[in-house]
Amino acid sequence: MAFSDQLSTIVTSVDGAIAVSIMGFDGIAIETKQVPALEQTATALELQNAWVEFGNVLGQLKQAAQTLKTGPIAELSVNTEKLVTLMRLVTPEYFVVLALTPAGNYGKGRYALRIAAPQLAKELV
Amino acid sequence: MAFSDQLSTIVTSVDGAIAVSIMGFDGIAIETKQVPALEQTATALELQNAWVEFGNVLGQLKQAAQTLKTGPIAELSVNTEKLVTLMRLVTPEYFVVLALTPAGNYGKGRYALRIAAPQLAKELV
Repeated sequence: MAFSDQLSTIVTSVDGAIAVSIMGFDGIAIETKQVPALEQTATALELQNAWVEFGNVLGQLKQAAQTLKTGPIAELSVNTEKLVTLMRLVTPEYFVVLALTPAGNYGKGRYALRIAAPQLAKELV
Repeated sequence: MAFSDQLSTIVTSVDGAIAVSIMGFDGIAIETKQVPALEQTATALELQNAWVEFGNVLGQLKQAAQTLKTGPIAELSVNTEKLVTLMRLVTPEYFVVLALTPAGNYGKGRYALRIAAPQLAKELV
């Protein structure tokens, strides 16, 4: 299954999903799927800006984990008043990021990323 | 209810909890409750080092949120291979942090912090 289809599966299966993307640690998205009905929400939240910021933090934690005793980082979630952001490492260079409304299905979102990550990793080789 | 009792309630109610703490953004803990049976785990993971690092990240996101359109930060979770860390803002100066084993009850942990945060905030005034 191509990137595009895998990302579509995530946004359609998770209630409250706004958009999902595969991004590099340079802040550049490879592919993004947005839920058309929530496009205005994504624009109002300036989702791309938030993702670049949160992606930087994930990159920083990835580095920090090398000196900590807690093992490599797998997942990061940043919850603000208006947005829930779930991120999961796919490869050392890329991660998948999912934006949800605060009332969205957090547990399902985490599950969807956990299942998708190894499949996305295969495509990225 | 004093800090100490509130923190004890959290660690005893969440399966897989290793320790919980109220910390300032200066990296100094006000009060910590550790599960005695998991003390060796906490020591092996060098929990305090991880918390200082993750607390820094939370502080950084708190600042970043001021320029983003996604609203103030409420919660951060950092999941590494050997440790799940949940953090929730209590006041602008303090946060509560909960360490869980990777198989711990993540959902219950988030719930416990969400319930405890406003109560802890009252004590911190």
